Amino acid sequence: MAHILITSGPTREYLDPVRYLSNASSGRMGAALAEAALDAGHRVTVVSGPVEVAYPAAAEVISIVSTQEMLSACQRVFPDCDCLIAAAAPCDYRPKNVAGQKIHKTGEPLRLEFVETPDIVATLATGKKASQIIVAFALETEEQHRRAMQKLERKRCDLIVVNGPEAIRADRTHVEILDKNGQVVGEFTGGKNEVAKNIFQAIWHRIKT
Amino acid sequence: MAHILITSGPTREYLDPVRYLSNASSGRMGAALAEAALDAGHRVTVVSGPVEVAYPAAAEVISIVSTQEMLSACQRVFPDCDCLIAAAAPCDYRPKNVAGQKIHKTGEPLRLEFVETPDIVATLATGKKASQIIVAFALETEEQHRRAMQKLERKRCDLIVVNGPEAIRADRTHVEILDKNGQVVGEFTGGKNEVAKNIFQAIWHRIKT
Repeated sequence: MAHILITSGPTREYLDPVRYLSNASSGRMGAALAEAALDAGHRVTVVSGPVEVAYPAAAEVISIVSTQEMLSACQRVFPDCDCLIAAAAPCDYRPKNVAGQKIHKTGEPLRLEFVETPDIVATLATGKKASQIIVAFALETEEQHRRAMQKLERKRCDLIVVNGPEAIRADRTHVEILDKNGQVVGEFTGGKNEVAKNIFQAIWHRIKT
Repeated sequence: MAHILITSGPTREYLDPVRYLSNASSGRMGAALAEAALDAGHRVTVVSGPVEVAYPAAAEVISIVSTQEMLSACQRVFPDCDCLIAAAAPCDYRPKNVAGQKIHKTGEPLRLEFVETPDIVATLATGKKASQIIVAFALETEEQHRRAMQKLERKRCDLIVVNGPEAIRADRTHVEILDKNGQVVGEFTGGKNEVAKNIFQAIWHRIKT
């Protein structure tokens, strides 16, 4: 039995107590991957942003809001895990300054500066053991293969699952899995549950337990 | 039988095909108000941003994403209505420029300019008939009464329901209803369904049918 860490859902980066930057990730791929990993007999920990999806009861779920919180939770759990599947869509920018009170309208444009949040996968990859497998997801709107391979190299992961923005909140999805050599080692189309099962199987025989 | 227009949920303002600005409004108050209005025998139209909440089957629901779309939908429906209850939390800023492709990380801060979105309640109030009632909601983190009265006057509404940010996504809520004279004409604490019923009753005897 391996211990699989799955990140899932969006994160939120608050500008003030009310407004935040986010994306429409539903957490459904994360939930489906958790189900597939549990079905295969593994232990699953999910670190999830705010979602409405129900994770399998047998998964341990750690709920977070921001990208920094997602990273911190993963840093606590990952040393004990055999595999990270980073299916979350964390906010990659946060406001440089967070207002303590609601920003009031003035009639003037609002100029905000955003800074990059920590890269969760790249940070975890830095301390990774040789036996640990890291699988990232890439959501790209253009030049999908080239950008996904850049991401795989920068984040130092073992596999990358590539999909387009139509995957967000959709029931059906199309993904390709690329390895370090840029080879397509899996290509799946279908419902998220079915695709998640296929993705997990493609990852599975690479997990050394 | 009156025709009640209820706005509900958040809106989203996209920066690019993936990222958006929003808030955590759940649509639960809107759904509870719709239920209360239907129970009282009225016709209900809900204009709702993206939410997971289920609206009553007897309500007509118009789904929108952005604040401009919420305004446009309300402008089509409101002339036929007796009352607007603006329970939505529309984004009041949108990015000045929307990127056609996902904004890629460069390592540099991202400077974005946001402009105000149209004020839905104020816009609808401009063309309102004398017989129409407009009820706004004010979510304030400080100086709640003063800011709510400023909002009531600026938006030219008849009543304003005031609550704090703890109302967002919470099951329990505390609200006060202020009239044009700044009088507290109702103050309710409890579950959102119960409070919605009380709010609707307080509005109800002002509706001329």
